[in-house]
Amino acid sequence: MSLVSPALHWDRSHFDRDDGISALASTPPDARSLPPANRGEVEVAFCLRHAGMRTLRLRYESVGAAGLPVVLVAGGISADRHLAPNAVDDAAGWWPSQVGEGRALDPRDHRLLSFDWVGADGALDAVIDPADQADAIAALLDALGIPALHAFVGCSYGAMVGLQFAQRHGHRLGRLVAISGTHRAHPYASAWRALQRRAVALGALQCDEVHGLSLARQFAILSYRTPEEFESRFAAPQVRGGRVHVGAEDYLDHCAARFAARTSPTAYLRLSESIDLQAVEPERIRVPVTVVAVAEDRLVPVADAYALVERLRGETRLRVLRSPYGHDAFLKEDTAIAAVLATALTDEHAPVLEESAA
Amino acid sequence: MSLVSPALHWDRSHFDRDDGISALASTPPDARSLPPANRGEVEVAFCLRHAGMRTLRLRYESVGAAGLPVVLVAGGISADRHLAPNAVDDAAGWWPSQVGEGRALDPRDHRLLSFDWVGADGALDAVIDPADQADAIAALLDALGIPALHAFVGCSYGAMVGLQFAQRHGHRLGRLVAISGTHRAHPYASAWRALQRRAVALGALQCDEVHGLSLARQFAILSYRTPEEFESRFAAPQVRGGRVHVGAEDYLDHCAARFAARTSPTAYLRLSESIDLQAVEPERIRVPVTVVAVAEDRLVPVADAYALVERLRGETRLRVLRSPYGHDAFLKEDTAIAAVLATALTDEHAPVLEESAA
Repeated sequence: MSLVSPALHWDRSHFDRDDGISALASTPPDARSLPPANRGEVEVAFCLRHAGMRTLRLRYESVGAAGLPVVLVAGGISADRHLAPNAVDDAAGWWPSQVGEGRALDPRDHRLLSFDWVGADGALDAVIDPADQADAIAALLDALGIPALHAFVGCSYGAMVGLQFAQRHGHRLGRLVAISGTHRAHPYASAWRALQRRAVALGALQCDEVHGLSLARQFAILSYRTPEEFESRFAAPQVRGGRVHVGAEDYLDHCAARFAARTSPTAYLRLSESIDLQAVEPERIRVPVTVVAVAEDRLVPVADAYALVERLRGETRLRVLRSPYGHDAFLKEDTAIAAVLATALTDEHAPVLEESAA
Repeated sequence: MSLVSPALHWDRSHFDRDDGISALASTPPDARSLPPANRGEVEVAFCLRHAGMRTLRLRYESVGAAGLPVVLVAGGISADRHLAPNAVDDAAGWWPSQVGEGRALDPRDHRLLSFDWVGADGALDAVIDPADQADAIAALLDALGIPALHAFVGCSYGAMVGLQFAQRHGHRLGRLVAISGTHRAHPYASAWRALQRRAVALGALQCDEVHGLSLARQFAILSYRTPEEFESRFAAPQVRGGRVHVGAEDYLDHCAARFAARTSPTAYLRLSESIDLQAVEPERIRVPVTVVAVAEDRLVPVADAYALVERLRGETRLRVLRSPYGHDAFLKEDTAIAAVLATALTDEHAPVLEESAA
């Protein structure tokens, strides 16, 4: 554990958002129907695995009553602490399909805790290991006085960090749901990300980081989606103004512009790198894990999910979904994902109380 | 047919190469053991489908005696007229595994004709349709006094152009072997290429076309290869100098530097675009076609090869290969490709003498 004396700075009025998505700084008119929520941040002195001691500001959001079992919810590198509309922020969040009253992650049943990834604000220009994120979550739990998580639900990078947490802090975890993320980064996916980082660097050379970041994001979207989706969605190329314009370009432009406007290039580079450092030893994990893989995923091959399941030592379940959305299925296949979550969270797993080997 | 009055400029001493690969301007010492070859160029006035009348210089290479049945051999957009070592150029060429004495494409059995793609020299900054390439080949045949091809063997873009030739000039074609290229560009592959072109454009903004072209090529390589190959080939990422360096980066750098040094950005952009304009109607093709697809191909999904085969109207054969090299299998799976070529070229197909519908 690299946590050193966390200092608590709980700020219930910390409503400003740093992701540029439409958000309100004051409670919206219909907030009374939205679940109550807390936002805050804690400052911790922290030893990064590859970059030494730093002071980190951990920004979290919590929805649901304090006495409920706590579920940590974490998404991809571009996700943040805001999961779904709540009383302090009625913006959509990144997972409104699964989070909310009557949904799979219901704040009436669980206290849903989430945080902004270490590095997400762009202030930390250093190598960030996924293990650092897991340790930061442990530090956050300490600061908030939460001894253990009922569950960790992670998607993509969140699943990778969830596996790190299960390995390093397994005594504080009841069960893990790891969706579309495994114990390692596949070398092909790593190459794809390295080239995205080069696109950012190419833009930076001409002081046009937004342009480079947009291009990087567009290549990333290709890796998140599938040929099947593009086949059904985009028309044939056209010649326009002496150039060939392909069907997906307008869509990719739109997505990338939105992304680049709300993302720090430094944050993108460091969190992208972080994915490539994923190196969990599944044999060291004893907590129950539900592994969810998508057959069409071009970033996380289903074979890696099989390998993970074979190597895990606790109670393990594998669910393989089919989806034309590939790696992004967790954002799109609402019914299938909800069913997985419902089963995984209501199972009568005995809490695993052994000491962590980490 | 858009051919207008080809003017012949046959130049047997035109030995200079424009692709930067090591080449000799004079006959090498061991040239007596290499097959005799001709290189030349013809200038034609030509109506491009999307860009009107132009004067084009068609650069060709021919190996094998004049009286032999002629086989046109064409590769991907970065391939050129030099297939394999011969008496005028002992450089390796792009297909030495299949071309040469004792190989599947043997200049003692066939006269092997090849040419540099229209646009490959970078002098033509205009939209180039794959149909233009097929018509340019017809113009080249006119100029060389070749009434018909025994066969057209095309790989990747070459297969696309081969299908165009079969549709537009079927009366001049005995059979087609279309390897890893079909009647259309898949929308996902088109998006991938469009982003590569944006990488070139991003480089051009800072007057660093080589940097942009390198990045584009690196993304292209990912599309040509497969996760299976990268899995077996590259080591885990490392932290070097405060950055994450992934296993494939050195390899990608090496390939891209070699490519960027010998490729005109304009040529790359225009030929990349050209792929996306592919639009053949297979129902209009009556010549025998052998379609070769690779199950792992991430650019040309095997489903597109199935669709092509279903729609072709002449004698049709399908060969589906498995290869960790994906789209690049034609450059790597020497034995399997040689077997396909041997069968396709020696079959007792009756020449198809019908008039082309084009």
